[in-house]
Amino acid sequence: MVKVAIVGASGYTGAELLRIMSVHPKAEVAELYARKNAGKKAGEVFPHLPKKYANMLLKDLESDSRDADTYFVCVPHGSAQPIVADLLSRGKKVVDLSADYRIKDVSIYEKYYRVAHNYGRELKSSVYGMPEFFEDEIAEANLVANPGCLARASLLALGPLYGDKLINLSQSPVIDAKTGVSGAGRRLKRDILFPEMNEDIRPYSPIYHRHVPEIEQFLKNLSNREIKVIFVPHIASFDRGILASVYLRVVEEIEVSDIGQTYLRYYGDSPFIKLVDLKQLPSVKRVRGSNTVEISFSEIFDKNLVVFVALDNLMSGASGNAVQCFNLMHHFDPEAGLRNLPPLYP
Amino acid sequence: MVKVAIVGASGYTGAELLRIMSVHPKAEVAELYARKNAGKKAGEVFPHLPKKYANMLLKDLESDSRDADTYFVCVPHGSAQPIVADLLSRGKKVVDLSADYRIKDVSIYEKYYRVAHNYGRELKSSVYGMPEFFEDEIAEANLVANPGCLARASLLALGPLYGDKLINLSQSPVIDAKTGVSGAGRRLKRDILFPEMNEDIRPYSPIYHRHVPEIEQFLKNLSNREIKVIFVPHIASFDRGILASVYLRVVEEIEVSDIGQTYLRYYGDSPFIKLVDLKQLPSVKRVRGSNTVEISFSEIFDKNLVVFVALDNLMSGASGNAVQCFNLMHHFDPEAGLRNLPPLYP
Amino acid sequence: MVKVAIVGASGYTGAELLRIMSVHPKAEVAELYARKNAGKKAGEVFPHLPKKYANMLLKDLESDSRDADTYFVCVPHGSAQPIVADLLSRGKKVVDLSADYRIKDVSIYEKYYRVAHNYGRELKSSVYGMPEFFEDEIAEANLVANPGCLARASLLALGPLYGDKLINLSQSPVIDAKTGVSGAGRRLKRDILFPEMNEDIRPYSPIYHRHVPEIEQFLKNLSNREIKVIFVPHIASFDRGILASVYLRVVEEIEVSDIGQTYLRYYGDSPFIKLVDLKQLPSVKRVRGSNTVEISFSEIFDKNLVVFVALDNLMSGASGNAVQCFNLMHHFDPEAGLRNLPPLYP
Amino acid sequence: MVKVAIVGASGYTGAELLRIMSVHPKAEVAELYARKNAGKKAGEVFPHLPKKYANMLLKDLESDSRDADTYFVCVPHGSAQPIVADLLSRGKKVVDLSADYRIKDVSIYEKYYRVAHNYGRELKSSVYGMPEFFEDEIAEANLVANPGCLARASLLALGPLYGDKLINLSQSPVIDAKTGVSGAGRRLKRDILFPEMNEDIRPYSPIYHRHVPEIEQFLKNLSNREIKVIFVPHIASFDRGILASVYLRVVEEIEVSDIGQTYLRYYGDSPFIKLVDLKQLPSVKRVRGSNTVEISFSEIFDKNLVVFVALDNLMSGASGNAVQCFNLMHHFDPEAGLRNLPPLYP
Repeated sequence: MVKVAIVGASGYTGAELLRIMSVHPKAEVAELYARKNAGKKAGEVFPHLPKKYANMLLKDLESDSRDADTYFVCVPHGSAQPIVADLLSRGKKVVDLSADYRIKDVSIYEKYYRVAHNYGRELKSSVYGMPEFFEDEIAEANLVANPGCLARASLLALGPLYGDKLINLSQSPVIDAKTGVSGAGRRLKRDILFPEMNEDIRPYSPIYHRHVPEIEQFLKNLSNREIKVIFVPHIASFDRGILASVYLRVVEEIEVSDIGQTYLRYYGDSPFIKLVDLKQLPSVKRVRGSNTVEISFSEIFDKNLVVFVALDNLMSGASGNAVQCFNLMHHFDPEAGLRNLPPLYP
Repeated sequence: MVKVAIVGASGYTGAELLRIMSVHPKAEVAELYARKNAGKKAGEVFPHLPKKYANMLLKDLESDSRDADTYFVCVPHGSAQPIVADLLSRGKKVVDLSADYRIKDVSIYEKYYRVAHNYGRELKSSVYGMPEFFEDEIAEANLVANPGCLARASLLALGPLYGDKLINLSQSPVIDAKTGVSGAGRRLKRDILFPEMNEDIRPYSPIYHRHVPEIEQFLKNLSNREIKVIFVPHIASFDRGILASVYLRVVEEIEVSDIGQTYLRYYGDSPFIKLVDLKQLPSVKRVRGSNTVEISFSEIFDKNLVVFVALDNLMSGASGNAVQCFNLMHHFDPEAGLRNLPPLYP
Repeated sequence: MVKVAIVGASGYTGAELLRIMSVHPKAEVAELYARKNAGKKAGEVFPHLPKKYANMLLKDLESDSRDADTYFVCVPHGSAQPIVADLLSRGKKVVDLSADYRIKDVSIYEKYYRVAHNYGRELKSSVYGMPEFFEDEIAEANLVANPGCLARASLLALGPLYGDKLINLSQSPVIDAKTGVSGAGRRLKRDILFPEMNEDIRPYSPIYHRHVPEIEQFLKNLSNREIKVIFVPHIASFDRGILASVYLRVVEEIEVSDIGQTYLRYYGDSPFIKLVDLKQLPSVKRVRGSNTVEISFSEIFDKNLVVFVALDNLMSGASGNAVQCFNLMHHFDPEAGLRNLPPLYP
Repeated sequence: MVKVAIVGASGYTGAELLRIMSVHPKAEVAELYARKNAGKKAGEVFPHLPKKYANMLLKDLESDSRDADTYFVCVPHGSAQPIVADLLSRGKKVVDLSADYRIKDVSIYEKYYRVAHNYGRELKSSVYGMPEFFEDEIAEANLVANPGCLARASLLALGPLYGDKLINLSQSPVIDAKTGVSGAGRRLKRDILFPEMNEDIRPYSPIYHRHVPEIEQFLKNLSNREIKVIFVPHIASFDRGILASVYLRVVEEIEVSDIGQTYLRYYGDSPFIKLVDLKQLPSVKRVRGSNTVEISFSEIFDKNLVVFVALDNLMSGASGNAVQCFNLMHHFDPEAGLRNLPPLYP
């Protein structure tokens, strides 16, 4: 059994990692870290946890021993920088769920996140955690930068099409994303109190959302061109799920069968990605609680194409994907711990 | 037009009073008071407000002028005590939506609310705001203590039956109440964050909830006996509404037709109370946004009786009832401002 | 008092018209018609209705008397055609909430709705019910074709900008719309059963939705060009509301202040449209139950512009707008019956 | 691997059995049966299913081969009678999730379910599937009658207390139960359409609900007295979960520590039942998707006691419990297939 630790265990991505690890055949949770909740038992912070975890103590990072092999870092951006660097210096493997090691151009990171980046060397070594694109690199990495949930949903639609040069590069893709409220985290904010958020949908951080630079960086790497995306996230009154609706212009002479073949080539072997017929439209409810991703695409009409991606923001959008990367890093079955979490429906 | 003021205008009951006042033909809102939000415009605190109110300034109580005739006090218990006393001393009429002037026995108040009561004289003068029972007293009052939302729902079921001596006094009634989340107010609390509260129902403050003493005081007045109630509120994931399910033992020889006649006698003239056939069971959705109350009752079986009451906790459970009392205090049409707020369905 | 009738009173738009009419100072509901529910009382079909309406009989159209002055027709497309034509021949005023008299080109109507159109003359006389654009025409009309809810939300964003030639006509606008479930009506369909629909968002009828032709017809009239829109509606688990996110390319030299001025010129006098700052993003919850529309727009970036429109699909998206047209047709205060329905929040 | 079959695979309990079986280490699904959907693939009926099941054909029962060892029967009451009897005659093991084999007194069954019972011999052989009470009998049974979801929740509260003679038998217990909408099944009914059910709570089938007789039968067996319960279920707008609030009178001289010890004795060894401190009140969200049951109880006050039980109606309330029984019948680890389904939170 590989020993793993969760740093930042009192947020939703931490709790979701515990859910996955509880059914992982090759890993065991050895340590839980928290800042404000240090000293409490995990069950005080998350009363739904099974006994096995409920009695584990949340430690702070002051203590010096680090007993696990792999660390999942679930702390806010900025805070993750030194924690990750320290863990790497101790020879640990790290999956960082924060944004700190995703963006290679420090100036862009600093512009979007308004915090300095002081760990250029570690940043250089990080691999962006999209297993469908960087399987080999992840397998060799000591530091995986797990993608932002909205970025991952967007890139699952865009990546293959840009990779195969099917998209007209002179026009920005439009990404209209809808996320459940767990994506806003567990911090106290009035606008996500139940009576303020229930029965609502509204845009937030339009255009300049922090997941934009990692999307653009990825598309630039695929296309060797600066790509600007038009990205608007919306928050709606359900717990889990992201639906990304992506509007694209294809290049001349591309037919819808080309789109299908491209996705099949990229995702045909993926244990988690389901290409679904447009008639059975992607639904966040159908993937809830699982690492499954549903992808569907329209006909091509006047060179336009619409692609839909549905995933669970805490699973394939965060912790599920983190475990998928972890499995690659340890050469485990890629579905280990994830196969056994089917969607919860209804 | 009677000028009214709302003290504590940045909570849900304050906002609901504004909604009602916006359609009230005889009243206009002259002043809004707030503590933490003093200095802001109302529209900054509640962006849904129509322009008419959005631009009103939230004042603090430091300033000395009081320009309205009637004050709706929507501040937490304890805080309301001196505010109400001061307003009375200035000759104002007051509807207090806090608990401060509901319970006549100071020792009971202090036990449940853990704060001293220093305004015995004013307390003595207050009238408990149940228009179905104290219409004349409310009409003469300067201080109306608006009932707690859960207490009002419970007492609408219990009051007539205890008043008419139909209930076996040797057994405690069981009141199982279910409330929407707006009942928990707008303060930041983790357990009502959307992802913590959505898709849930759970009991809270069982047995010793603060609305118990006002229920028991009322029943004692009706029956001349100490009545202990078994009261458990539950919070469930909807915005508005209270459903109270009340389990009773009737006295010998009472038939279900007696129950019907009693309710009819008490409520037949009420513009807001609808006695609904048990087959069309009370539903909080059907009364949402309105001052309507639905009441329904079972057959009598082995001397047992079950009564259901559905109302909107912010309307008949709080602000709607406060305006009904206000109308009585000013000898207005009892439905003024309320008739024109039909339920919002769906 | 003008006598009005509702044809198709057992659906949500019919019930919403009753809600509005219950507070309308100049109109009274004289007749309710239904097909399957004919013979029942309105209160059997909608138990939330106030007594005043609950006891009204639902009639069928077989009977020959038509006692009202104005008829709101809320039956499915196809069925509305002959009903509307018959009412017009009797000299009645009609607001048709179906799609039957919206699209002037019969071949396009027949392609999208798959039913023949046999009332060319009446169709020619209909006025498209967008009061912000056709105030005078509506005031003179005998037949108003009330817009589709999604079309109206889209056109409130698009209309002024196309009208003022601010938009690059060589590129299709992208309209990503999100609607609550009441938009799907009250018919029995498995995919909107609570356990299937709750906690979900999913696209439906992408690209070829039936509201597309009326959007394109409107834009063609404004721009004298064939405009193709890219339109994808999504359904999400809340009762009421539409949020349309509209992605546009502006022409050269247009600045964001031009956008603001254009909207102000079109909507500055509207009693219902609120231009809200982008920081206070449009929210369907904030307009719920009211005829208010919130509109907000982004900066211009690389000639791109995003506009958000939030409205209540049963109010400004259907019955509220129908009453606004009715008010114009009778030269009433445009806000009659609507001013007094403030949003229900929370 | 034991081969299992699901008869009635197009309802929610059938789908939930598939979810459990997908992670069960000792069982595999060999056959799926359906009536109306026979001939379709399972994935057409439940698009969320993983490939493994999505391609399985739904068969009808006309065909004569029965290849599985154990049959989970998930068809409506009445229909299950002959199916179960036939399977038993073929030597199969059966877990019947319908009500057909729960009630030993045929006249009571026929009164509540309004259908004749023609299989007295099989009925006599059935064991009521409460593993906490009948572990040995279930292990030996060929036919387990899985409890009704509301009955099971109620009996988990009541059983130990009646079993240990802690309850005053002269007074009926009050059971106020709240269930999510999946409990109403997947059939088309207007009152559970999303816009009719969302944001609501309402009682249904009060007093005479069909789960009453199995509760009373169980209590009679424990106490050797006819016990009448006062039982009112409510349906509220969430997908999954039952919260039962149970109001009891204890016998003289019982203290709250006796209650705790009794529950501990009955449930201390149960892998699924969690006794939670009253301060951490039971919540249906905390058990969602798992076979976990949370039980909590109040102080004793004036001989009154309140007990709360929270479980997932499709898991411990139906399919999860059915698998727990199945495990006993095959002498498997009692947690097989269930340990690996932790709650989904949030």
